[in-house]
Amino acid sequence: MSNFNFYIYNQLTILYLSFFSLLSNFTTSSFPNTFNTPKFPSSIIRPDQISVSTQNGVYRTKFFTQILDHFNFNPKSYQTFQQRYLINDTYWGGAENKAPIFVYTGNEGKIEWFAQNTGFMFETASHFKALIVFIEHRFYGKSRPFGGNKKVAYSNSSTLGYLSSTQALADYATLITDLKQNLTAIHSPVVVFGGSYGGMLATWFRLKYPHVAIGAVASSAPILHFENMVSPDSFNNIVTQDFRSESESCYKVIKESWQQIQDTASKPGGLELLRKSFRICKNHISANSLESWLSTAYIYSAMTDYPTPSNFLSSLPAYPVKEMCKAIDNPDARKDTFAKLYGAANIYYNYSGAATCFDLDDDSDPHDLGGWSWQACTEMIMPTGGNNEQSVFPASKWNYSNRVSFCKALYGVEPRPNWILNEFGGHGIERVLKRFGSNIIFFNGLRDPWSAGGVLKNISNTIVAIVAKQGAHHVDLRFSTREDPQWLKDVRKQEVELISGWISQYYNDLDLLI
Amino acid sequence: MSNFNFYIYNQLTILYLSFFSLLSNFTTSSFPNTFNTPKFPSSIIRPDQISVSTQNGVYRTKFFTQILDHFNFNPKSYQTFQQRYLINDTYWGGAENKAPIFVYTGNEGKIEWFAQNTGFMFETASHFKALIVFIEHRFYGKSRPFGGNKKVAYSNSSTLGYLSSTQALADYATLITDLKQNLTAIHSPVVVFGGSYGGMLATWFRLKYPHVAIGAVASSAPILHFENMVSPDSFNNIVTQDFRSESESCYKVIKESWQQIQDTASKPGGLELLRKSFRICKNHISANSLESWLSTAYIYSAMTDYPTPSNFLSSLPAYPVKEMCKAIDNPDARKDTFAKLYGAANIYYNYSGAATCFDLDDDSDPHDLGGWSWQACTEMIMPTGGNNEQSVFPASKWNYSNRVSFCKALYGVEPRPNWILNEFGGHGIERVLKRFGSNIIFFNGLRDPWSAGGVLKNISNTIVAIVAKQGAHHVDLRFSTREDPQWLKDVRKQEVELISGWISQYYNDLDLLI
Repeated sequence: MSNFNFYIYNQLTILYLSFFSLLSNFTTSSFPNTFNTPKFPSSIIRPDQISVSTQNGVYRTKFFTQILDHFNFNPKSYQTFQQRYLINDTYWGGAENKAPIFVYTGNEGKIEWFAQNTGFMFETASHFKALIVFIEHRFYGKSRPFGGNKKVAYSNSSTLGYLSSTQALADYATLITDLKQNLTAIHSPVVVFGGSYGGMLATWFRLKYPHVAIGAVASSAPILHFENMVSPDSFNNIVTQDFRSESESCYKVIKESWQQIQDTASKPGGLELLRKSFRICKNHISANSLESWLSTAYIYSAMTDYPTPSNFLSSLPAYPVKEMCKAIDNPDARKDTFAKLYGAANIYYNYSGAATCFDLDDDSDPHDLGGWSWQACTEMIMPTGGNNEQSVFPASKWNYSNRVSFCKALYGVEPRPNWILNEFGGHGIERVLKRFGSNIIFFNGLRDPWSAGGVLKNISNTIVAIVAKQGAHHVDLRFSTREDPQWLKDVRKQEVELISGWISQYYNDLDLLI
Repeated sequence: MSNFNFYIYNQLTILYLSFFSLLSNFTTSSFPNTFNTPKFPSSIIRPDQISVSTQNGVYRTKFFTQILDHFNFNPKSYQTFQQRYLINDTYWGGAENKAPIFVYTGNEGKIEWFAQNTGFMFETASHFKALIVFIEHRFYGKSRPFGGNKKVAYSNSSTLGYLSSTQALADYATLITDLKQNLTAIHSPVVVFGGSYGGMLATWFRLKYPHVAIGAVASSAPILHFENMVSPDSFNNIVTQDFRSESESCYKVIKESWQQIQDTASKPGGLELLRKSFRICKNHISANSLESWLSTAYIYSAMTDYPTPSNFLSSLPAYPVKEMCKAIDNPDARKDTFAKLYGAANIYYNYSGAATCFDLDDDSDPHDLGGWSWQACTEMIMPTGGNNEQSVFPASKWNYSNRVSFCKALYGVEPRPNWILNEFGGHGIERVLKRFGSNIIFFNGLRDPWSAGGVLKNISNTIVAIVAKQGAHHVDLRFSTREDPQWLKDVRKQEVELISGWISQYYNDLDLLI
C-alpha cells in the first residue's frame, strides 16, 4: 500500500460516519483529495434515558424568529428563519426568584440529540432551580433558514454562507435576551454549557457575550486545534496511545494490519476474502473503504471510551477500547489478523449482536450532521489527520492544500484558516485570559483525541481546567449512572461547586449593583 | 411656533452639518420626519499642527486588502477592498524590543482627520517607543468597498449593508494581526485609542478582541446611549447646562429666541429681516433652517467647549460657549435679540472674520462623514433629540417612529434598535465588567453633551472612568498646548500612567508565560 492511498482513507476515517458517502466519490475517483477534520461525535443516551427526556415531555419544543444575518444590514439580511429550542421549566425557581437559566449552545446536529446526551444539565437543574434551554444551531435539525427547506438552505454557497460560528453565537445572544425579556427574567443568571464544538461555542459565547452569560462549562472543546498551535499528529497519537495503553500487542496487530489488508486486496480473490472475513454485506468492497470502516471504529471508540455502557450511533460496552483489544488479543483467533480485527470492529458496529453483515456504503445521517462539511471548508480548519511513525495508522502528513482543493471542488469556497484564531483568540491564551475574562470551566479527558486541542491548565482563579486522565469526549456532561467511577463523580462535583460559586457571586453583585 | 415644527428642526440641528442638505428635503417638504442622532464631531487640528502631521510626512499612507464580509462565507463575502491606514514608526522601539503599537480605531470620517485630532498618540509615542497606526473605518475616506467607488458603495442598501460596527471591528483585528506578522512583531502589545464613535469601537475592540489589544483608551464614548439606558433629553440638558453655567441671561435669551424667530418669520417682510440680521447670503431662508443653523452653533460649541483655541469645521476661541454668552450678554446689543444671537453665531461660524455672509444650504462634507446616516438608520439608534421644559431648546420628545419612517424612506431599511446592546452589552455594565475584562480607560468631559451616555464611574481596578468636570468631547486626545489647564494635564498624565501599567504588566506576563 502506498502511503498516499492510506493517507486518503485515513484522513477520511476520522470523519463522522455520515460523510462517507458524500466523500466516497473523492476517494474512489481519481480526485486526489481528502477531507480530514474529524466530525465531533456526541454520544447518544441509552434508550431508557431517551424515553425520560423526550417521550415523557421533559422538554417542550419552541421556535424563535431569528435574524438571518446579524452583521449585515442589506435587505436580505433582514430575512428571518425559525430557530428551534427545547425548554424545561420543571425545576425552575422562577423569574421572581431570579433563578438561573442553563443554556446549551447547540452544535452541529439535531438539538434533541444533544439534549439526550447532556444529562448533567438535567441532573443538576433541581439543585440550582434552573430553567433548562437547549438551542439548536442554525442550519441543523429543524433550524433551517430559507423556509425551513434543507435542500434550499444547502443548495449552494450563497445560502450556506450564513452558516458560521459568529452568526450562531449572535443567534444565541439574541434568543436568550429575548427569552429573558419574555419571561421577565432579566436578572436570572445564564450559564452556558456545551460539549465538543458546542463547548467551543460555549467558551466563545462567554468571551464575546459576558453580558448575556455569567459563565461557561466547555467540555472537550478543542479551541486551540487551529493553525499551528497543535501538531496535526496529536489527534491520532492519542488514539494510538489509547490502544497501546490496553495492550502493546493490540496496538501492533492494528498497526500491521493495514499492509496485510492492502496485500490481500491486491491478490486474486483477495477482496472476496476480505468481504467474508469482515462480513461486508454488499458486493462493493475496496481496501480503502474497509480501512476507513475499521479506522472509524478505532477512532470513535477512543473518543467515546466511556467507563460505562453508552450508545453512540450503535451501542458500546463500558471501556470499548479495552473490549476491542480483548477481541484482538483473543487467543482463539491465534494468528488470523482479520478475525481479530473483525472481533474488534464487531464491538463497535454490532455490540447488540443484531447485525448480520455490514454496509461500507452506509450514508445515513440520523443526527443531521451534514452541515459540518461546510463549516470544515470555511472556518473550522483543525489539522488532525497526520500520523507519525509510532501511529497505529500508517505515517502520513496533514496536507492543507488537499482541504483547499476538496472545498473548492465541493462548494466553490476556499477556507479561511486563520479566521477562528483571529476572531476568538488562542495564541497566548494563558496570558490573554489571565487578565481578561472569568468563569469558564474547560473539561478534558485525556483519552479523548480532541483533548490535544483543549485548555489543559488553569488560566486564572476563575478560568479553570479540569483534566481527567481516564476521561473521554465530554464524558462529564453525560447522564450519571450507578457505575460511574469516583473520578467522574468528582469531576461533576467540582463543576457543580464552581457553577455554584459563579451564581452566588452574581447574586451578591446584583444586590450591590442593581 | 408649534412644538411640532420646532421638534423637526431641533432634532435636525444636532446632526452633523454635512447632513443638512441630505435631510433638508425632509424638513422643507411635508415629510413629517426627523433624524435625530447627533453626528459625532471631532475637532480638527490647528493649521500649524496639520502641517506637522501630514505635510512633513509624519505618517505614511498604506492600504491593506481587507475581506468584505468576515461573518459570512458566500462567494460575495470573499470580495475584498482596500482599507487605508496611516503608520508612523518615528518613535517605535522595534519588533526586537517588543515595543508597543498604538492603534487608533477609526471612526466615521477620513482617517487623516482623526490623526490630526489625536495628538495624544503622537505626543506619548516617544515615551512609550510606540508605533502609531491609524486605521480608517470601512466606507469612509479612501476605504471604500466595491472598487473604491463611493457612488457604488453608497448606491443602495445591498452595498451599504457591509457598513457596520462589527465588520469594522473585525477589519481592525484582521489588519492588526496581519501587520504584526508582517513586522514580526507578534509580541508587541497593542493599545487601541478612539474618540467618540471611535472610542466606542476601541471599547468594544478591547472587549471582543482581548487577544489583539491589551487595553483601550475610550474617550467620550457614549456606549450606553442606547435603548432606554439614558434619557433622550440628557444630551440637550447638557447643552442647556453649558450655556446656563455661563450666564442665566444668555440661556434665557436663547431659550426665548425660537418663538421670536417664528413670530418674525410669519410676518410680512419678516424673513427678509431675519436674512439681514443673520447675514444669510442667499435668498433661501426659512425659520426652520435658520433655527437649525443656530442650534448647530450652540450644540457644537458645547461639544467642543475646549479650554484652548481649536478648529472644528471653522476656528473657535478657547471656551467658545463662554464667548457666545459674552456676545449674547453684550450690553451694546441691548434688547436686539437677533443682534445678540448673530454675535453668538458669528463666533461659531466666523471666528476668523473672513465670512461676509452665511449659506444655510451649505452641504459640504470635507471630512466625508456621510456614511453615518446609514449607521444611524441601522445600528446606531442613540436617542438624543428630546427636550424637557428647562431645555434651552423648545420642549419636544424623542420619537423613534420618526426615525423608522425616515430610514425606510431614505434607505428602505428599518433600524435594529436593540442590536448594539445585544451585541456589545451595556445594561448592568458595572456588574458585568466588574468580573470580566480589564484595561479600559473611559474618559468623559461633563460639558460634553455625549457624556450622558458614557461610563462615569470606575468599574474595577483596571476598568476606570476619568471624569473631567470642565472637559468637552475627547479633549484628552487633542494635541497639548501651552495654555492647557492643569486638570487637562492631570488627565493625560493619569492616562499615561495607566497605559504604562498595562504595558509593564504585559511584559511581566510575557516573561512568565511566553
